[in-house]
Amino acid sequence: MPDTTAGVTSAHGSGDGHEATEILAAARECVDPELRRAVDSLPGSLRRVARYHFGWEGADGAPTAGNAGKAIRPALVLAAVRALGGEPATAVRAAAAVELIHNFTLLHDDVMDRDTTRRHRPTAWTVFGDADAILVGDALQALAQRLVAEDTHPAAPAAAARLARCVVELCAGQHADCALERRGPDEVTLDECLAMAEAKTGALLGCACAIGALYAGGGPEEVEALDGFGREAGLAFQLIDDVIGIWGDPGRTGKPAGADLAVRKKSLPVVAALASGTPAAVELAELYGAPPGSPPGSPPGDDTGEGEGELERAARAVERAGGRDWAQGHAADRMSRAIGQLARAVPDPEAAGGLLALAEFVTRRTH
Amino acid sequence: MPDTTAGVTSAHGSGDGHEATEILAAARECVDPELRRAVDSLPGSLRRVARYHFGWEGADGAPTAGNAGKAIRPALVLAAVRALGGEPATAVRAAAAVELIHNFTLLHDDVMDRDTTRRHRPTAWTVFGDADAILVGDALQALAQRLVAEDTHPAAPAAAARLARCVVELCAGQHADCALERRGPDEVTLDECLAMAEAKTGALLGCACAIGALYAGGGPEEVEALDGFGREAGLAFQLIDDVIGIWGDPGRTGKPAGADLAVRKKSLPVVAALASGTPAAVELAELYGAPPGSPPGSPPGDDTGEGEGELERAARAVERAGGRDWAQGHAADRMSRAIGQLARAVPDPEAAGGLLALAEFVTRRTH
Repeated sequence: MPDTTAGVTSAHGSGDGHEATEILAAARECVDPELRRAVDSLPGSLRRVARYHFGWEGADGAPTAGNAGKAIRPALVLAAVRALGGEPATAVRAAAAVELIHNFTLLHDDVMDRDTTRRHRPTAWTVFGDADAILVGDALQALAQRLVAEDTHPAAPAAAARLARCVVELCAGQHADCALERRGPDEVTLDECLAMAEAKTGALLGCACAIGALYAGGGPEEVEALDGFGREAGLAFQLIDDVIGIWGDPGRTGKPAGADLAVRKKSLPVVAALASGTPAAVELAELYGAPPGSPPGSPPGDDTGEGEGELERAARAVERAGGRDWAQGHAADRMSRAIGQLARAVPDPEAAGGLLALAEFVTRRTH
Repeated sequence: MPDTTAGVTSAHGSGDGHEATEILAAARECVDPELRRAVDSLPGSLRRVARYHFGWEGADGAPTAGNAGKAIRPALVLAAVRALGGEPATAVRAAAAVELIHNFTLLHDDVMDRDTTRRHRPTAWTVFGDADAILVGDALQALAQRLVAEDTHPAAPAAAARLARCVVELCAGQHADCALERRGPDEVTLDECLAMAEAKTGALLGCACAIGALYAGGGPEEVEALDGFGREAGLAFQLIDDVIGIWGDPGRTGKPAGADLAVRKKSLPVVAALASGTPAAVELAELYGAPPGSPPGSPPGDDTGEGEGELERAARAVERAGGRDWAQGHAADRMSRAIGQLARAVPDPEAAGGLLALAEFVTRRTH
């Protein structure tokens, strides 16, 4: 199994991820009924696609064991409430809303990116078609806003506005991602990719923490510091996700080995490698210049396919160019900035423990 | 010019549509700055597509004279506030939010339906691609919710919840529309098509009126009666829209003559005609059974195209089967139900005048 540990340790984290696993399981148990109630309120035609997407049903409508993802975002909402001395039970609807927003973006991103696998299963658009995946994504965004609008908690309107602003940022991030993917490997800077990752991933993790702060009655400084914490942890999360996208174990990730390389994805380790000025960068640029499915140097239209050896060569080039080390180092860097923001909002290490454990968990995971 | 008058008259309506034209112009003037401010708050990449969609810019970013649609929905919001004795100025953000929701659905529907023309111009997806049209639609939904969430009016949370529930209904309506279009012409009932039209069109017109009632401080009965008014008027609106889709003047509609027939759209007059049990229904079913672009009886794959005569033959078949008369009669019927709902909420004819003029306008229009 590849080692994707970012090398971050902290006096307050449990280190082995046990605490985070428990927090995640508790959050899922807490939020799941609210989430299922929301999804089951959809008209039948849309409900079926949504229940499939969440992993609760097969394509035929039969119940499945379910693998609705790690529920990191709702766990962050609830942990942020707790960190600021609030009552997490008051924020369960808001936490479910954040998870609905996340899943709306997954459904739409998969359509745009033509991704065929999500959580070890065929993506919704491959099963139900583009129109259904678009419509159910639209409906999940609306459901999220409905949950918060119907919430009588005094923080609800501010949370709703924040969530809406976050969706605009997520859309801008996905737009930047699509635009970057259309450009050549030498036309993309690392700064652009980091900004894109902050909008696409950091924004919603920051928003989750900020909404938790709002529900705990936190002031503007606490809310912004927790937003910053979530954003920085989100960047670390994305960096590790990109490492897993190249070196992750297919049995655990649910994606083929080197999946990101196969589609020439300009993930952060790849772009860092391309920018390294090393001989390995030149090799990688050549590989990425060739159309997917063609070994470099073969004429266009030659669809003999690339063997696993080809992807391994690309992975080694990223590694030799320093892309993997950079990504893990930068993830550690972002984690330390996250810890700084967290300390600003929650000086008591005991109170901050849950958020910290979650942030460390996502930078230590291997799938 | 074809006569699409539904034949509805009322003691309270101005009859010639002059009052409605003035109400629409005033609403547009009132809501436009809020709408532009919201759209201009989008990040540049998304803003450009949104400004194109609203008709404020060309594909090259140059300003255009603009044709952002008739603004019927925001006008209904403001007219409903006025009808219940409220102050329309307090509901301008909510009115802009309703218009943003409408435009989000247009962007996404055009992607799903592969429609290439909207408001006399190429649709956004044909200019910017599917991904941009999907993302900007997503962002417009979020902007709408942001406007309402940031509104301090006491009715804002109820309006936000109502708008979110309406979006789910719009999605279900579009889903039903896509599903109906995939079925054979003899596998679709008129009741299904009417239910689809209520969800796809009636729901948002009802929601616009209900939100106006909320902002005027109306009670539950008034809110529901105005929702019912908007829904019934929305059905009338859709019926007339379908008539225009077959017999409308291309120079005024911005769509080719018989556009709905050319794509074998199962619009309400067509489905009514198919269900008529007349010889013309049999002829129409044959025409609709043939793949688009092929004259009936020609072998599949024969793409010699269908002349205008072919579409004229289909239009005549719908007319002879009674589809046009039924649509206009049913529109009048829905309008009278709408007037009944309106009288329930607003017994004073003077106060109800604005809403009535708008409803009559949309059932009298010819483009």
